Amino acid sequence: MEKGTLLYEGKAKQIYSTNDEEVVWVQYKNSATAFNGEKKADIDGKGVLNNKISSLLFSKLAEKGIESHFIKQLSDHEQLVKRVDIIPLEVVVRNVIAGSLSKRLGIEEGTEMTKPIIEFYYKNDDLGDPLITDDHINYLEIATDEERSVLREMALQVNEVLQGIFKEAGVILVDFKLEFGKDRSGKILLGDEISPDTCRLWDADTRQKLDKDVFRRDLGSLTEVYSIILERLGGNSLCTK
Amino acid sequence: MEKGTLLYEGKAKQIYSTNDEEVVWVQYKNSATAFNGEKKADIDGKGVLNNKISSLLFSKLAEKGIESHFIKQLSDHEQLVKRVDIIPLEVVVRNVIAGSLSKRLGIEEGTEMTKPIIEFYYKNDDLGDPLITDDHINYLEIATDEERSVLREMALQVNEVLQGIFKEAGVILVDFKLEFGKDRSGKILLGDEISPDTCRLWDADTRQKLDKDVFRRDLGSLTEVYSIILERLGGNSLCTK
Ligand SMILES: Nc1ncnc2c1ncn2[C@@H]1O[C@H](COP(=O)(O)OP(=O)(O)O)[C@@H](O)[C@H]1O
Ligand SMILES: Nc1ncnc2c1ncn2[C@@H]1O[C@H](COP(=O)(O)OP(=O)(O)O)[C@@H](O)[C@H]1O
Ligand SMILES: [Mg+2]
Ligand SMILES: [Mg+2]
Repeated sequence: MEKGTLLYEGKAKQIYSTNDEEVVWVQYKNSATAFNGEKKADIDGKGVLNNKISSLLFSKLAEKGIESHFIKQLSDHEQLVKRVDIIPLEVVVRNVIAGSLSKRLGIEEGTEMTKPIIEFYYKNDDLGDPLITDDHINYLEIATDEERSVLREMALQVNEVLQGIFKEAGVILVDFKLEFGKDRSGKILLGDEISPDTCRLWDADTRQKLDKDVFRRDLGSLTEVYSIILERLGGNSLCTK
Repeated sequence: MEKGTLLYEGKAKQIYSTNDEEVVWVQYKNSATAFNGEKKADIDGKGVLNNKISSLLFSKLAEKGIESHFIKQLSDHEQLVKRVDIIPLEVVVRNVIAGSLSKRLGIEEGTEMTKPIIEFYYKNDDLGDPLITDDHINYLEIATDEERSVLREMALQVNEVLQGIFKEAGVILVDFKLEFGKDRSGKILLGDEISPDTCRLWDADTRQKLDKDVFRRDLGSLTEVYSIILERLGGNSLCTK
Protein backbone atom coordinates (compact mmCIF):
# COMPACT_ATOMS: atom_id res chain seq x y z
CA MET A 1 0.00 0.00 0.00
CA GLU A 2 1.36 3.44 -0.94
CA LYS A 3 0.62 6.70 0.82
CA GLY A 4 -0.74 9.31 -1.60
CA THR A 5 -1.78 12.93 -1.23
CA LEU A 6 -3.32 14.63 1.78
CA LEU A 7 -7.08 14.50 1.29
CA TYR A 8 -8.17 16.22 4.47
CA GLU A 9 -6.67 17.54 7.66
CA GLY A 10 -8.83 17.69 10.78
CA LYS A 11 -8.05 18.74 14.31
CA ALA A 12 -6.66 15.35 15.35
CA LYS A 13 -5.81 13.42 12.19
CA GLN A 14 -4.64 13.72 8.60
CA ILE A 15 -6.26 11.57 5.94
CA TYR A 16 -4.18 10.55 2.90
CA SER A 17 -5.21 8.75 -0.23
CA THR A 18 -3.59 5.42 -1.13
CA ASN A 19 -3.19 3.51 -4.37
CA ASP A 20 -6.42 1.70 -3.44
CA GLU A 21 -9.44 3.95 -3.99
CA GLU A 22 -11.29 2.29 -1.14
CA VAL A 23 -8.57 2.70 1.45
CA VAL A 24 -7.22 5.78 3.22
CA TRP A 25 -4.11 6.29 5.32
CA VAL A 26 -4.72 7.97 8.68
CA GLN A 27 -2.02 9.85 10.53
CA TYR A 28 -2.73 10.70 14.17
CA LYS A 29 -1.47 14.17 15.09
CA ASN A 30 -0.13 15.44 18.42
CA SER A 31 -2.46 18.40 18.58
CA ALA A 32 -5.05 18.62 21.33
CA THR A 33 -8.04 20.91 20.91
CA ALA A 34 -11.11 21.67 23.01
CA PHE A 35 -14.12 23.96 23.04
CA ASN A 36 -14.48 23.82 19.27
CA GLY A 37 -10.81 24.70 18.70
CA GLU A 38 -10.65 27.63 21.15
CA LYS A 39 -8.13 25.81 23.35
CA LYS A 40 -5.17 24.24 21.57
CA ALA A 41 -1.84 22.60 22.37
CA ASP A 42 0.73 20.34 20.81
CA ILE A 43 1.37 17.39 23.07
CA ASP A 44 4.21 15.00 22.33
CA GLY A 45 3.05 11.40 22.48
CA LYS A 46 -0.67 12.10 22.06
CA GLY A 47 -0.85 10.89 18.46
CA VAL A 48 0.87 7.61 19.26
CA LEU A 49 -1.32 6.98 22.27
CA ASN A 50 -4.58 7.64 20.43
CA ASN A 51 -3.47 5.60 17.44
CA LYS A 52 -2.58 2.63 19.65
CA ILE A 53 -5.71 2.87 21.80
CA SER A 54 -7.99 3.31 18.81
CA SER A 55 -6.38 0.42 16.90
CA LEU A 56 -6.69 -1.80 19.94
CA LEU A 57 -10.36 -0.93 20.51
CA PHE A 58 -11.33 -1.34 16.85
CA SER A 59 -9.63 -4.76 16.88
CA LYS A 60 -11.52 -5.80 20.00
CA LEU A 61 -14.80 -4.60 18.49
CA ALA A 62 -14.10 -6.63 15.34
CA GLU A 63 -13.56 -9.74 17.51
CA LYS A 64 -17.08 -9.14 18.86
CA GLY A 65 -18.51 -8.83 15.36
CA ILE A 66 -18.74 -5.05 15.16
CA GLU A 67 -17.51 -3.90 11.78
CA SER A 68 -15.55 -0.71 11.47
CA HIS A 69 -13.40 1.02 8.89
CA PHE A 70 -10.27 -0.25 10.66
CA ILE A 71 -7.90 -2.37 8.58
CA LYS A 72 -4.63 -2.25 10.50
CA GLN A 73 -2.15 -0.21 12.44
CA LEU A 74 0.85 0.68 10.28
CA SER A 75 3.17 2.46 12.67
CA ASP A 76 3.16 4.52 15.83
CA HIS A 77 1.14 7.30 14.21
CA GLU A 78 -0.49 5.56 11.28
CA GLN A 79 -3.47 3.37 10.46
CA LEU A 80 -4.97 2.00 7.29
CA VAL A 81 -8.76 2.26 7.18
CA LYS A 82 -11.53 1.76 4.67
CA ARG A 83 -12.49 5.01 3.03
CA VAL A 84 -16.02 6.06 3.87
CA ASP A 85 -18.23 9.07 3.29
CA ILE A 86 -18.60 10.31 6.83
CA ILE A 87 -22.22 10.92 7.89
CA PRO A 88 -22.07 14.40 9.46
CA LEU A 89 -23.35 13.27 12.84
CA GLU A 90 -21.53 12.88 16.11
CA VAL A 91 -23.33 9.99 17.74
CA VAL A 92 -22.89 10.30 21.49
CA VAL A 93 -23.65 7.46 23.90
CA ARG A 94 -23.93 8.29 27.59
CA ASN A 95 -23.98 5.90 30.55
CA VAL A 96 -23.28 8.43 33.29
CA ILE A 97 -24.29 12.10 33.26
CA ALA A 98 -21.37 14.45 32.56
CA GLY A 99 -20.32 17.46 30.54
CA SER A 100 -22.92 19.20 28.42
CA LEU A 101 -25.70 16.79 29.46
CA SER A 102 -25.15 17.72 33.10
CA LYS A 103 -25.53 21.40 32.17
CA ARG A 104 -28.47 20.83 29.80
CA LEU A 105 -30.59 18.87 32.25
CA GLY A 106 -29.28 20.41 35.46
CA ILE A 107 -28.26 17.03 36.85
CA GLU A 108 -25.07 16.44 38.77
CA GLU A 109 -22.07 15.04 36.92
CA GLY A 110 -21.59 11.43 37.96
CA THR A 111 -25.27 10.51 38.12
CA GLU A 112 -25.64 7.00 36.71
CA MET A 113 -28.39 6.11 34.26
CA THR A 114 -30.14 2.78 34.11
CA LYS A 115 -30.36 3.02 30.31
CA PRO A 116 -27.90 4.75 27.96
CA ILE A 117 -28.90 8.03 26.34
CA ILE A 118 -28.04 8.52 22.67
CA GLU A 119 -27.63 12.00 21.23
CA PHE A 120 -26.96 13.21 17.72
CA TYR A 121 -24.87 16.31 17.15
CA TYR A 122 -24.57 17.95 13.76
CA LYS A 123 -20.89 17.59 12.81
CA ASN A 124 -20.26 21.16 11.69
CA ASP A 125 -17.39 23.15 13.20
CA ASP A 126 -18.81 26.50 12.01
CA LEU A 127 -21.99 25.86 13.98
CA GLY A 128 -20.17 24.44 17.01
CA ASP A 129 -21.51 20.90 16.53
CA PRO A 130 -25.03 21.62 17.86
CA LEU A 131 -27.35 19.01 19.35
CA ILE A 132 -30.02 18.11 16.82
CA THR A 133 -33.23 16.09 16.94
CA ASP A 134 -34.76 13.51 14.62
CA ASP A 135 -36.84 16.26 12.97
CA HIS A 136 -33.69 18.27 12.24
CA ILE A 137 -31.91 15.20 10.85
CA ASN A 138 -34.87 14.55 8.56
CA TYR A 139 -35.02 18.16 7.44
CA LEU A 140 -31.29 18.25 6.68
CA GLU A 141 -31.58 14.84 5.00
CA ILE A 142 -28.50 13.66 6.88
CA ALA A 143 -29.93 10.20 7.43
CA THR A 144 -33.19 8.43 6.79
CA ASP A 145 -35.32 7.13 9.67
CA GLU A 146 -34.00 3.67 8.89
CA GLU A 147 -30.37 4.78 8.83
CA ARG A 148 -30.89 6.61 12.11
CA SER A 149 -32.17 3.39 13.64
CA VAL A 150 -29.10 1.55 12.36
CA LEU A 151 -26.83 4.20 13.89
CA ARG A 152 -28.62 3.93 17.24
CA GLU A 153 -28.47 0.15 17.16
CA MET A 154 -24.78 0.04 16.24
CA ALA A 155 -23.94 2.70 18.85
CA LEU A 156 -25.66 0.63 21.54
CA GLN A 157 -23.79 -2.49 20.43
CA VAL A 158 -20.48 -0.64 20.56
CA ASN A 159 -21.44 0.58 24.03
CA GLU A 160 -22.12 -2.96 25.24
CA VAL A 161 -18.72 -4.17 24.05
CA LEU A 162 -16.74 -1.13 25.20
CA GLN A 163 -18.40 -1.17 28.63
CA GLY A 164 -17.20 -4.75 29.05
CA ILE A 165 -13.66 -3.95 27.92
CA PHE A 166 -13.34 -0.91 30.16
CA LYS A 167 -14.92 -2.60 33.15
CA GLU A 168 -12.23 -5.29 33.01
CA ALA A 169 -9.68 -2.48 32.87
CA GLY A 170 -11.09 -0.87 36.03
CA VAL A 171 -12.47 2.06 34.07
CA ILE A 172 -16.00 3.50 33.89
CA LEU A 173 -17.11 4.31 30.35
CA VAL A 174 -19.01 7.53 31.13
CA ASP A 175 -19.76 8.57 27.55
CA PHE A 176 -18.24 8.57 24.08
CA LYS A 177 -18.67 9.94 20.59
CA LEU A 178 -18.79 7.84 17.45
CA GLU A 179 -18.74 8.74 13.78
CA PHE A 180 -20.13 6.52 11.08
CA GLY A 181 -19.68 6.53 7.33
CA LYS A 182 -20.85 4.76 4.23
CA ASP A 183 -18.52 2.64 2.15
CA ARG A 184 -18.77 2.47 -1.63
CA SER A 185 -21.56 -0.09 -1.48
CA GLY A 186 -23.57 2.20 0.81
CA LYS A 187 -22.99 0.06 3.88
CA ILE A 188 -22.76 1.89 7.20
CA LEU A 189 -19.46 1.31 9.02
CA LEU A 190 -18.13 2.64 12.29
CA GLY A 191 -15.40 5.17 11.41
CA ASP A 192 -13.11 7.81 12.85
CA GLU A 193 -11.46 6.95 16.18
CA ILE A 194 -12.21 5.67 19.68
CA SER A 195 -9.75 7.16 22.13
CA PRO A 196 -9.57 9.19 25.35
CA ASP A 197 -10.12 12.18 23.04
CA THR A 198 -13.58 10.88 22.20
CA CYS A 199 -14.54 9.04 25.41
CA ARG A 200 -15.02 10.10 29.02
CA LEU A 201 -13.19 7.49 31.10
CA TRP A 202 -13.06 7.50 34.89
CA ASP A 203 -11.04 5.25 37.15
CA ALA A 204 -13.58 2.86 38.69
CA ASP A 205 -12.16 3.24 42.22
CA THR A 206 -10.95 6.82 42.46
CA ARG A 207 -13.15 8.35 39.73
CA GLN A 208 -9.96 10.06 38.44
CA LYS A 209 -10.54 11.42 34.95
CA LEU A 210 -8.48 9.50 32.38
CA ASP A 211 -9.53 11.36 29.25
CA LYS A 212 -9.50 14.69 27.41
CA ASP A 213 -11.26 16.43 30.31
CA VAL A 214 -7.76 16.47 31.88
CA PHE A 215 -6.79 18.83 29.05
CA ARG A 216 -10.14 20.69 28.86
CA ARG A 217 -10.19 21.41 32.60
CA ASP A 218 -6.40 21.60 33.27
CA LEU A 219 -6.39 18.61 35.59
CA GLY A 220 -2.91 17.23 34.87
CA SER A 221 -0.83 15.57 32.17
CA LEU A 222 -2.79 14.30 29.19
CA THR A 223 -0.18 11.76 28.13
CA GLU A 224 0.08 10.40 31.65
CA VAL A 225 -3.61 9.54 31.83
CA TYR A 226 -3.84 8.35 28.20
CA SER A 227 -0.88 6.05 28.99
CA ILE A 228 -2.79 4.62 31.93
CA ILE A 229 -5.67 3.79 29.60
CA LEU A 230 -3.36 2.16 27.05
CA GLU A 231 -1.68 0.07 29.73
CA ARG A 232 -4.93 -0.99 31.36
CA LEU A 233 -6.20 -2.11 27.95
CA GLY A 234 -3.11 -4.30 27.67
CA GLY A 235 -1.33 -2.19 25.05
CA ASN A 236 2.38 -1.40 25.02
CA SER A 237 2.86 1.57 27.25
CA LEU A 238 4.86 4.60 26.24
CA CYS A 239 7.79 6.02 28.08
CA THR A 240 6.63 9.62 28.48
CA LYS A 241 9.32 10.80 30.86
CA MET B 1 -66.87 32.54 40.00
CA GLU B 2 -64.70 34.19 42.65
CA LYS B 3 -61.05 35.15 42.33
CA GLY B 4 -58.98 33.60 45.12
CA THR B 5 -55.30 33.77 46.05
CA LEU B 6 -52.31 34.17 43.74
CA LEU B 7 -51.07 30.65 43.00
CA TYR B 8 -48.21 31.49 40.69
CA GLU B 9 -46.72 34.51 38.98
CA GLY B 10 -44.81 34.02 35.75
CA LYS B 11 -43.16 36.45 33.39
CA ALA B 12 -46.36 37.25 31.48
CA LYS B 13 -49.29 36.13 33.60
CA GLN B 14 -50.56 35.69 37.13
CA ILE B 15 -52.57 32.61 38.03
CA TYR B 16 -55.18 32.85 40.79
CA SER B 17 -57.27 30.14 42.40
CA THR B 18 -61.06 30.32 42.22
CA ASN B 19 -63.83 28.79 44.29
CA ASP B 20 -63.83 25.93 41.77
CA GLU B 21 -60.84 23.64 42.31
CA GLU B 22 -60.67 22.82 38.62
CA VAL B 23 -60.66 26.40 37.39
CA VAL B 24 -58.01 29.12 37.59
CA TRP B 25 -58.20 32.85 36.93
CA VAL B 26 -55.51 34.18 34.60
CA GLN B 27 -54.41 37.81 34.63
CA TYR B 28 -52.31 38.95 31.67
CA LYS B 29 -49.52 41.32 32.73
CA ASN B 30 -48.00 44.23 30.82
CA SER B 31 -44.44 43.05 31.26
CA ALA B 32 -42.40 42.01 28.23
CA THR B 33 -39.34 39.83 28.68
CA ALA B 34 -36.83 38.28 26.30
CA PHE B 35 -33.60 36.27 26.39
CA ASN B 36 -34.71 34.32 29.44
CA GLY B 37 -35.58 37.46 31.35
CA GLU B 38 -32.38 39.41 30.57
CA LYS B 39 -34.33 42.07 28.65
CA LYS B 40 -37.41 43.47 30.39
CA ALA B 41 -39.93 46.27 29.98
CA ASP B 42 -43.38 47.26 31.12
CA ILE B 43 -45.55 48.02 28.11
CA ASP B 44 -48.97 49.57 28.56
CA GLY B 45 -51.58 47.70 26.56
CA LYS B 46 -49.61 44.48 26.12
CA GLY B 47 -51.64 42.47 28.63
CA VAL B 48 -54.95 43.45 27.04
CA LEU B 49 -53.72 42.68 23.55
CA ASN B 50 -52.38 39.24 24.46
CA ASN B 51 -55.47 38.40 26.47
CA LYS B 52 -57.75 39.36 23.57
CA ILE B 53 -55.65 37.63 20.91
CA SER B 54 -55.23 34.48 22.99
CA SER B 55 -58.95 34.32 23.86
CA LEU B 56 -59.85 34.78 20.23
CA LEU B 57 -57.46 32.06 19.04
CA PHE B 58 -58.50 29.54 21.70
CA SER B 59 -62.14 30.16 20.70
CA LYS B 60 -61.37 29.58 17.04
CA LEU B 61 -59.44 26.41 17.89
CA ALA B 62 -62.42 25.15 19.92
CA GLU B 63 -64.68 25.73 16.88
CA LYS B 64 -62.37 23.40 14.96
CA GLY B 65 -62.55 20.76 17.66
CA ILE B 66 -59.24 21.43 19.38
CA GLU B 67 -59.72 21.36 23.11
CA SER B 68 -57.84 23.75 25.34
CA HIS B 69 -57.97 24.96 28.91
CA PHE B 70 -59.81 28.12 27.77
CA ILE B 71 -63.22 28.72 29.33
CA LYS B 72 -63.89 32.41 28.71
CA GLN B 73 -62.52 35.91 28.65
CA LEU B 74 -63.59 37.82 31.76
CA SER B 75 -62.26 41.30 31.16
CA ASP B 76 -59.54 43.18 29.32
CA HIS B 77 -56.80 41.46 31.31
CA GLU B 78 -58.53 38.35 32.59
CA GLN B 79 -59.45 34.84 31.48
CA LEU B 80 -60.96 31.83 33.17
CA VAL B 81 -59.26 28.57 32.25
CA LYS B 82 -59.31 24.97 33.36
CA ARG B 83 -56.61 24.25 35.87
CA VAL B 84 -54.02 21.82 34.56
CA ASP B 85 -50.69 20.44 35.68
CA ILE B 86 -48.43 21.97 33.08
CA ILE B 87 -46.14 19.44 31.37
CA PRO B 88 -42.72 21.13 31.57
CA LEU B 89 -42.16 21.15 27.80
CA GLU B 90 -42.29 24.04 25.39
CA VAL B 91 -43.59 22.43 22.22
CA VAL B 92 -42.38 24.50 19.28
CA VAL B 93 -43.84 24.13 15.77
CA ARG B 94 -41.92 25.68 12.89
CA ASN B 95 -43.11 26.28 9.33
CA VAL B 96 -40.38 28.72 8.28
CA ILE B 97 -36.82 28.77 9.56
CA ALA B 98 -36.16 31.61 12.03
CA GLY B 99 -34.56 32.43 15.35
CA SER B 100 -32.62 29.71 17.13
CA LEU B 101 -33.29 27.13 14.41
CA SER B 102 -31.63 29.39 11.85
CA LYS B 103 -28.56 29.62 14.11
CA ARG B 104 -28.59 25.93 15.03
CA LEU B 105 -28.68 24.62 11.47
CA GLY B 106 -26.93 27.53 9.75
CA ILE B 107 -29.88 28.13 7.43
CA GLU B 108 -31.10 31.58 6.48
CA GLU B 109 -34.07 33.03 8.35
CA GLY B 110 -37.09 32.96 6.05
CA THR B 111 -36.37 29.59 4.45
CA GLU B 112 -39.67 27.75 4.07
CA MET B 113 -40.05 24.09 4.95
CA THR B 114 -42.29 21.66 3.15
CA LYS B 115 -43.10 19.91 6.42
CA PRO B 116 -43.28 21.47 9.90
CA ILE B 117 -40.52 20.76 12.39
CA ILE B 118 -41.52 20.07 15.99
CA GLU B 119 -39.09 20.71 18.81
CA PHE B 120 -39.33 20.10 22.54
CA TYR B 121 -37.66 22.47 24.97
CA TYR B 122 -37.36 21.71 28.65
CA LYS B 123 -39.44 24.41 30.40
CA ASN B 124 -36.92 25.39 33.06
CA ASP B 125 -35.89 29.03 33.48
CA ASP B 126 -32.78 28.17 35.49
CA LEU B 127 -31.48 26.07 32.60
CA GLY B 128 -32.55 28.58 29.94
CA ASP B 129 -35.23 26.30 28.44
CA PRO B 130 -32.79 24.01 26.58
CA LEU B 131 -33.66 21.95 23.51
CA ILE B 132 -34.12 18.32 24.51
CA THR B 133 -34.55 15.08 22.61
CA ASP B 134 -36.85 12.10 23.03
CA ASP B 135 -34.12 10.30 24.99
CA HIS B 136 -33.86 13.24 27.39
CA ILE B 137 -37.64 13.39 27.81
CA ASN B 138 -37.68 9.68 28.61
CA TYR B 139 -34.83 10.01 31.06
CA LEU B 140 -36.47 12.94 32.85
CA GLU B 141 -39.81 11.07 32.74
CA ILE B 142 -41.53 14.26 31.56
CA ALA B 143 -43.78 12.37 29.17
CA THR B 144 -44.19 8.79 28.02
CA ASP B 145 -43.63 7.85 24.37
CA GLU B 146 -47.39 7.78 23.96
CA GLU B 147 -47.90 11.19 25.55
CA ARG B 148 -45.12 12.61 23.38
CA SER B 149 -46.97 11.32 20.30
CA VAL B 150 -50.17 12.96 21.53
CA LEU B 151 -48.33 16.26 22.02
CA ARG B 152 -46.87 16.06 18.50
CA GLU B 153 -50.23 15.20 17.00
CA MET B 154 -52.07 17.98 18.85
CA ALA B 155 -49.35 20.51 17.99
CA LEU B 156 -49.65 19.62 14.30
CA GLN B 157 -53.45 19.98 14.46
CA VAL B 158 -53.13 23.38 16.12
CA ASN B 159 -50.66 24.33 13.39
CA GLU B 160 -53.12 23.36 10.65
CA VAL B 161 -55.88 25.48 12.15
CA LEU B 162 -53.70 28.47 13.05
CA GLN B 163 -52.05 28.48 9.61
CA GLY B 164 -55.52 28.81 8.07
CA ILE B 165 -56.57 31.59 10.43
CA PHE B 166 -53.40 33.60 9.91
CA LYS B 167 -53.35 33.06 6.17
CA GLU B 168 -56.81 34.67 5.93
CA ALA B 169 -55.44 37.53 7.99
CA GLY B 170 -52.55 38.07 5.57
CA VAL B 171 -50.04 36.78 8.08
CA ILE B 172 -47.42 34.03 7.82
CA LEU B 173 -47.31 31.75 10.85
CA VAL B 174 -43.53 31.27 11.01
CA ASP B 175 -43.36 29.35 14.29
CA PHE B 176 -44.99 29.18 17.71
CA LYS B 177 -44.67 27.67 21.15
CA LEU B 178 -47.37 25.68 22.90
CA GLU B 179 -47.68 24.40 26.44
CA PHE B 180 -49.84 21.47 27.39
CA GLY B 181 -51.12 20.28 30.72
CA LYS B 182 -53.10 17.47 32.28
CA ASP B 183 -56.48 18.07 33.85
CA ARG B 184 -57.66 16.19 36.94
CA SER B 185 -58.72 13.19 34.89
CA GLY B 186 -55.25 13.01 33.32
CA LYS B 187 -56.43 14.25 29.94
CA ILE B 188 -53.95 16.34 27.95
CA LEU B 189 -55.24 19.84 27.15
CA LEU B 190 -53.67 22.73 25.28
CA GLY B 191 -52.82 25.36 27.91
CA ASP B 192 -51.02 28.64 28.50
CA GLU B 193 -51.46 31.28 25.75
CA ILE B 194 -51.23 31.80 22.00
CA SER B 195 -50.21 35.35 21.28
CA PRO B 196 -47.58 37.41 19.45
CA ASP B 197 -45.44 36.71 22.53
CA THR B 198 -45.42 33.02 21.68
CA CYS B 199 -45.69 33.07 17.86
CA ARG B 200 -43.52 34.47 15.08
CA LEU B 201 -45.91 36.28 12.73
CA TRP B 202 -44.83 38.01 9.53
CA ASP B 203 -46.93 40.16 7.23
CA ALA B 204 -47.52 38.01 4.15
CA ASP B 205 -46.73 40.84 1.71
CA THR B 206 -44.04 42.91 3.39
CA ARG B 207 -42.64 40.24 5.73
CA GLN B 208 -42.82 42.88 8.50
CA LYS B 209 -42.44 41.25 11.89
CA LEU B 210 -45.68 41.43 13.89
CA ASP B 211 -44.56 39.66 17.05
CA LYS B 212 -42.24 39.75 20.03
CA ASP B 213 -39.16 39.92 17.78
CA VAL B 214 -40.08 43.64 17.50
CA PHE B 215 -39.24 43.87 21.21
CA ARG B 216 -36.36 41.36 21.16
CA ARG B 217 -34.60 43.11 18.27
CA ASP B 218 -35.78 46.73 18.90
CA LEU B 219 -37.69 46.96 15.63
CA GLY B 220 -40.48 49.34 16.69
CA SER B 221 -43.55 49.53 18.90
CA LEU B 222 -44.74 46.24 20.33
CA THR B 223 -48.32 47.40 20.94
CA GLU B 224 -48.55 48.78 17.40
CA VAL B 225 -47.78 45.43 15.80
CA TYR B 226 -49.76 43.39 18.35
CA SER B 227 -52.73 45.70 17.55
CA ILE B 228 -52.32 44.93 13.86
CA ILE B 229 -52.58 41.21 14.66
CA LEU B 230 -55.67 41.71 16.82
CA GLU B 231 -57.39 43.80 14.12
CA ARG B 232 -56.51 41.39 11.34
CA LEU B 233 -57.97 38.55 13.38
CA GLY B 234 -61.19 40.54 13.60
CA GLY B 235 -60.87 41.51 17.25
CA ASN B 236 -61.66 44.90 18.74
CA SER B 237 -58.62 47.03 18.22
CA LEU B 238 -57.07 49.10 20.96
CA CYS B 239 -56.45 52.79 20.83
CA THR B 240 -52.75 52.87 21.67
CA LYS B 241 -52.17 56.54 20.93
N1 LIG C 1 -12.68 6.01 7.17
C1 LIG C 1 -12.71 7.33 6.92
N2 LIG C 1 -12.79 7.78 5.63
C2 LIG C 1 -12.83 9.10 5.37
N3 LIG C 1 -12.78 10.05 6.31
C3 LIG C 1 -12.72 9.67 7.61
C4 LIG C 1 -12.68 8.30 7.97
N4 LIG C 1 -12.64 8.24 9.33
C5 LIG C 1 -12.67 9.50 9.79
N5 LIG C 1 -12.70 10.39 8.76
C6 LIG C 1 -12.71 11.85 8.84
O1 LIG C 1 -11.39 12.33 8.89
C7 LIG C 1 -11.41 13.67 9.35
C8 LIG C 1 -10.20 13.96 10.20
O2 LIG C 1 -10.39 13.52 11.52
P1 LIG C 1 -10.22 14.56 12.72
O3 LIG C 1 -8.86 15.17 12.69
O4 LIG C 1 -10.67 13.85 13.95
O5 LIG C 1 -11.28 15.69 12.26
P2 LIG C 1 -12.17 16.73 13.10
O6 LIG C 1 -11.35 17.98 13.23
O7 LIG C 1 -13.39 16.92 12.23
O8 LIG C 1 -12.50 16.08 14.42
C9 LIG C 1 -12.76 13.87 10.00
O9 LIG C 1 -13.59 14.64 9.16
C10 LIG C 1 -13.32 12.45 10.09
O10 LIG C 1 -14.73 12.47 10.05
N1 LIG D 1 -54.43 26.15 32.66
C1 LIG D 1 -53.36 26.34 33.44
N2 LIG D 1 -53.32 25.85 34.70
C2 LIG D 1 -52.25 26.05 35.49
N3 LIG D 1 -51.14 26.72 35.10
C3 LIG D 1 -51.11 27.22 33.85
C4 LIG D 1 -52.22 27.07 32.97
N4 LIG D 1 -51.89 27.68 31.79
C5 LIG D 1 -50.65 28.17 31.95
N5 LIG D 1 -50.17 27.92 33.18
C6 LIG D 1 -48.87 28.30 33.74
O1 LIG D 1 -48.96 29.60 34.27
C7 LIG D 1 -47.66 30.13 34.47
C8 LIG D 1 -47.66 31.62 34.21
O2 LIG D 1 -47.56 31.92 32.85
P1 LIG D 1 -46.36 32.82 32.31
O3 LIG D 1 -46.41 34.16 33.00
O4 LIG D 1 -46.43 32.79 30.82
O5 LIG D 1 -45.11 32.02 32.88
P2 LIG D 1 -43.60 31.87 32.33
O6 LIG D 1 -42.82 32.96 32.99
O7 LIG D 1 -43.21 30.50 32.80
O8 LIG D 1 -43.64 31.99 30.82
C9 LIG D 1 -46.75 29.28 33.59
O9 LIG D 1 -46.00 28.41 34.42
C10 LIG D 1 -47.73 28.49 32.76
O10 LIG D 1 -47.16 27.25 32.36
MG1 LIG E 1 -12.24 14.27 15.26
MG1 LIG F 1 -45.07 32.12 29.41
